Amino acid sequence: MNLNIIPVKWSDEGVLMLDQRLLPTEEKWLTLRTYDEVAAGIKDMVVRGAPAIGVSAAYGIALGLNQFVGTDIADLEEELDYISDVIGRTRPTAVNLFWAIDRMKRTFAKAKAEGRTVSEIKQIMIADAKAIHDEDIESQRLIAKFGGELIDDNATVLTHCNAGALATGGVWGTALGVIRGAVDQGKKVSVIADETRPYLQGARLTAWELLQDDIPVTLITDNMSGHMMKRGEVQAVVVGSDRIAANGDVANKIGTYMVAVLARRHGIPFYVAAPLSTVDLNCPTGDDIPIEERDRREITHVKDIQLAPEGIGISNYAFDVTPNDLVTAIITEKGVARAPYTESLKAQFD
Amino acid sequence: MNLNIIPVKWSDEGVLMLDQRLLPTEEKWLTLRTYDEVAAGIKDMVVRGAPAIGVSAAYGIALGLNQFVGTDIADLEEELDYISDVIGRTRPTAVNLFWAIDRMKRTFAKAKAEGRTVSEIKQIMIADAKAIHDEDIESQRLIAKFGGELIDDNATVLTHCNAGALATGGVWGTALGVIRGAVDQGKKVSVIADETRPYLQGARLTAWELLQDDIPVTLITDNMSGHMMKRGEVQAVVVGSDRIAANGDVANKIGTYMVAVLARRHGIPFYVAAPLSTVDLNCPTGDDIPIEERDRREITHVKDIQLAPEGIGISNYAFDVTPNDLVTAIITEKGVARAPYTESLKAQFD
Repeated sequence: MNLNIIPVKWSDEGVLMLDQRLLPTEEKWLTLRTYDEVAAGIKDMVVRGAPAIGVSAAYGIALGLNQFVGTDIADLEEELDYISDVIGRTRPTAVNLFWAIDRMKRTFAKAKAEGRTVSEIKQIMIADAKAIHDEDIESQRLIAKFGGELIDDNATVLTHCNAGALATGGVWGTALGVIRGAVDQGKKVSVIADETRPYLQGARLTAWELLQDDIPVTLITDNMSGHMMKRGEVQAVVVGSDRIAANGDVANKIGTYMVAVLARRHGIPFYVAAPLSTVDLNCPTGDDIPIEERDRREITHVKDIQLAPEGIGISNYAFDVTPNDLVTAIITEKGVARAPYTESLKAQFD
Repeated sequence: MNLNIIPVKWSDEGVLMLDQRLLPTEEKWLTLRTYDEVAAGIKDMVVRGAPAIGVSAAYGIALGLNQFVGTDIADLEEELDYISDVIGRTRPTAVNLFWAIDRMKRTFAKAKAEGRTVSEIKQIMIADAKAIHDEDIESQRLIAKFGGELIDDNATVLTHCNAGALATGGVWGTALGVIRGAVDQGKKVSVIADETRPYLQGARLTAWELLQDDIPVTLITDNMSGHMMKRGEVQAVVVGSDRIAANGDVANKIGTYMVAVLARRHGIPFYVAAPLSTVDLNCPTGDDIPIEERDRREITHVKDIQLAPEGIGISNYAFDVTPNDLVTAIITEKGVARAPYTESLKAQFD
């Protein structure tokens, strides 16, 4: 393993993002020089994945505030609220976005209460965005450690979408962190990656990531995961999450729910790996999680190739909710939570 | 409804096939002038769908024999065996292919026993291929009638892949026949079509077909069917089949099994529509059905666009098997068979 994928970085010129829309055929870095460009980068999926969105949002806020011209704290706070609104309107489901905004606002409030100057607050906000990034990577290292212990030697692990280094602050990833953790512990692990239509994060990103780290990967269409389970070729399922409700219901990439139902039918453990920043105790159940709907063109076209006739209806829900009874365990940086999740998740925040 | 889609036709110049690889953006007819070209047309999926493959195979045999030069019956029979071998090696799962070959061989044997000349036998074989085609359309009309009665007014029906007129001899289709039957009976029916990766028969063919007949259709990715069921937006599932074992296990397009498992979880009836030529009493269970594996490029590319990195493993099973306990009913031209299928299917052959 190389463990060297970091998809978002801070620089003096702005926020650097590896353009995930171009992977796996092109590795191109963008420099996003304003908070508006960072917001567009999140919305247009230059970067995606709940933890990576959180880190990017924090960097976007730090960048925007750093470009504020003036010395009045009240004006700076107004700018913070405005920037936060813009960034908060990009993707509705990933709670890490709102978590990062809230944390940056709290950091601002604390600095303001301490009587810091505008110039000092700018530096504090940059430092906190970097801290969010560092802590995210550290969380994944722990998720990898705790989750890796759940994976048997010689197991084949199925994953859906990309919950890898690319979906986070980098290095380990959440679901792929669990797989990397098992490999790091000396186990032999193979991966089956669902391609994950419509955006093909599995085909484009998960397959690419695992190749970088020399972890064997077999790509399948989303239609094939049930058949592979039926053939006995899957020993565990591990996915990430965009938001986990207080009761353990898990919002994740569309199709996750189907994989979970099939895993249950075949007696295969279904693990969810996510940092606590993905757990939303303010959301009692999965029914309370807003589900993003995306553009019809993601389904009707691949680049300029038209796949479907004009004039048909399209539904394009980007996420679904897997009810907690299908979830074998939730792996966070605090350890392995099991049902009843209302208690076990809450306890991890203490 | 127009009810005018017939994807395969006999002509004096050869077998005409609507090139389904180009739909929905181009409607182009190919003239296949030799049995080799017909075999290639089946293998390369110019035409696909079990009943359509059966009709095409019969036409291919009739075409090949009609081009035989000679007057010796034994030589003609040798040619029949050779052509049948070539056509029989195109697609392993669709039993209608072998059913059509067997029927054409029986017709030949009967004509030979009756002392017919080579010239007469050629005409008899063409006539029988046309009869197979006519009977297939009539079977679908009856499937539409019987199946339509199972669909409620104002229902939304989910279907996977394309089991429409394009997948058969034409006009009604099997799964789409059930939907057309319900519409023909005066019911209002909407359709949710799974796009059906990797070959996108749902996006390209089912959506196109239903538009031709003014039946409302919403296209989704395969990942979304579970979510739509969870939202209560699906009242019935109807699919076709490539081979039904004697015990009612159903081989159909990869992903069908996942849809069936999800339908069961949500208490949604799961119907299979197929002519008896798809039922293989020589296959005791689904475990005995050979599952075709297709080229990796179907998954890694859409036309020339590369979706996945080089060097990864690929699995590309084209079909899966849905066990009989998940099948609410099997609709054939003889009526509606229900569990236990070993008895109910066998009875339909009497």
